[in-house]
Amino acid sequence: MISPIKWKNNKVFMLDQRILPFKEVEIEHSTHFEVAASIRNMVIRGAPAIGVAAAMGVALGVLNMGENVRDPGYEFEKILSELESTRPTAKNLFWATGEMKKIFKKHSGNLSVLKERMIERALEIKREDEKINMKIGENGEGLIGEGDTVLTHCNAGSLATAGYGTALGVIRGAFFKGRKLSVIACETRPYLQGARLTTWELQKDNIPVKLITDSMAGYLMSAGNIDIVITGADRIAANGDTANKIGTYSLAVLARHHNIPFYIAAPVSTIDFESGSGKDIVIEERDKNEVLTCMGKKTALPETEVYNPAFDITPQDLITAIITERKVISGNFRSGISALFE
Amino acid sequence: MISPIKWKNNKVFMLDQRILPFKEVEIEHSTHFEVAASIRNMVIRGAPAIGVAAAMGVALGVLNMGENVRDPGYEFEKILSELESTRPTAKNLFWATGEMKKIFKKHSGNLSVLKERMIERALEIKREDEKINMKIGENGEGLIGEGDTVLTHCNAGSLATAGYGTALGVIRGAFFKGRKLSVIACETRPYLQGARLTTWELQKDNIPVKLITDSMAGYLMSAGNIDIVITGADRIAANGDTANKIGTYSLAVLARHHNIPFYIAAPVSTIDFESGSGKDIVIEERDKNEVLTCMGKKTALPETEVYNPAFDITPQDLITAIITERKVISGNFRSGISALFE
Repeated sequence: MISPIKWKNNKVFMLDQRILPFKEVEIEHSTHFEVAASIRNMVIRGAPAIGVAAAMGVALGVLNMGENVRDPGYEFEKILSELESTRPTAKNLFWATGEMKKIFKKHSGNLSVLKERMIERALEIKREDEKINMKIGENGEGLIGEGDTVLTHCNAGSLATAGYGTALGVIRGAFFKGRKLSVIACETRPYLQGARLTTWELQKDNIPVKLITDSMAGYLMSAGNIDIVITGADRIAANGDTANKIGTYSLAVLARHHNIPFYIAAPVSTIDFESGSGKDIVIEERDKNEVLTCMGKKTALPETEVYNPAFDITPQDLITAIITERKVISGNFRSGISALFE
Repeated sequence: MISPIKWKNNKVFMLDQRILPFKEVEIEHSTHFEVAASIRNMVIRGAPAIGVAAAMGVALGVLNMGENVRDPGYEFEKILSELESTRPTAKNLFWATGEMKKIFKKHSGNLSVLKERMIERALEIKREDEKINMKIGENGEGLIGEGDTVLTHCNAGSLATAGYGTALGVIRGAFFKGRKLSVIACETRPYLQGARLTTWELQKDNIPVKLITDSMAGYLMSAGNIDIVITGADRIAANGDTANKIGTYSLAVLARHHNIPFYIAAPVSTIDFESGSGKDIVIEERDKNEVLTCMGKKTALPETEVYNPAFDITPQDLITAIITERKVISGNFRSGISALFE
């Protein structure tokens, strides 16, 4: 199984997703600062994968604490804030740092035990995420019918998670059960995760995939070429409103216009109870050069002004169901989501 | 006024739109074959500009007929079919070749007179198109309110016409009247006419413009940042269904969802009575490498399959009004369109 991140010899190795699929290069990380930089620079991306990276980053930070550290609690908070400042929208990042905090509280009295437990928990978070994705795939695969064409946006696959994927996990679940299906991947400007990552992942699994520019989705829906839309999520509010890669909202509106079911696939750790609705979710605005370039080449004059929101919010009423590892939620999302935790 | 094409010393010069805005280079054309190649390769694009180019191409072809040509009628048909085979969707191309055919019929008996008349008519078609655009601007400018933000797609500006533009002509009309407005330009993958051409044109006129990727339009509409959408057209059916650059249909659906008016601005020569509705319009499918690359750089592995429709159809019920040089048509488009010709 492709995985974007691994822990080896007390170091973190990430597949550099900025240069995939043209080069497969691993980057080595020895400090939590390096891990934070790689999250910020999108060496690794995808909310669940960011969660795993953050957990491993925290473990590295604690590992690097000297025996004579004066205030481990203070140092620990600095490690957390370095990692938490990287990508504000990905809920799983904050979930993962929260998990690491629990371990810290339990074992902060003994630094060498703490270090061991930190590594254990980070590795466990990774293994859990793989299992969660398999379960999401299992729970969701029945929604894809024989012969269906599934549209997906960005990359919610192995590369966006510990492995297997959320939206692509559902697709894999159906495909590996022998169902005939094909995928249409939106290229996902500005960062082209669909073109570079989703097609590459699916091709490795021999799952039929066609690439389109983001502007073609409506036309293909109107032509009857799309049966179902499935995307991942970066953060899900308590009422089901979902933040995901910019362009997801447009796809949800288009799907509704064409009576095509629109699904979100995401682990429970993506749910944010502190956000009552999408209005409470902070949308990250990224550097203007992402819009003014494509694959490093200028697309417009450098002085051109841009908008560059990295995410948008799909309101819950445009979502047919949310596929999680525990349950597929539809209908009243607020009660369905809170029932997950009862 | 910027113009993408001119006639000088019995040659046709086109601004190479493939390399704008980074280089401003004119390409010289001495034969109709060269003109046809430049239409096909998108040195020039935009339905009205293609019409002007085709007229000039026909004039060049006739100019190059030797005194001892055996069958001018046969040669003329070959010139027409060379030019008409370039871009199937642009109605103005066929309108322009039709106009040149009328001149041919009238003067085919005298080759030297024919040559003069051909050049005259081609230059006239260019001058007429400029005037038509100014008139479209005049007819449409009142639809843009003080302080409005206008979303546009692709490039329906000076570069897509003889000059001034259709959708951008309406924007210019309002701006030059002193109205405060700003423009949001969709970059328009795969060919980036919005990023490369629309921003460049508007910047030259000091009209405020922000660039977005195509996937951001829905989000900005939901955030209340867009007041009105105006695009051009490549072909308008008798019932008002409109073929335009891929992505236009998605914008129309999104505009409807957000109760934002959606306008088409186009000359009457874009109307095709032989197409009763959008179903009769042929959509050009272009080379897969346009999707697999951006500004010449690969975005996915070369073996990746794609869809690459160059246009889509916006059904008339999603169009608030069609702005032409004669009239702004709304309500019953079929009768409004046929009334234009009475």
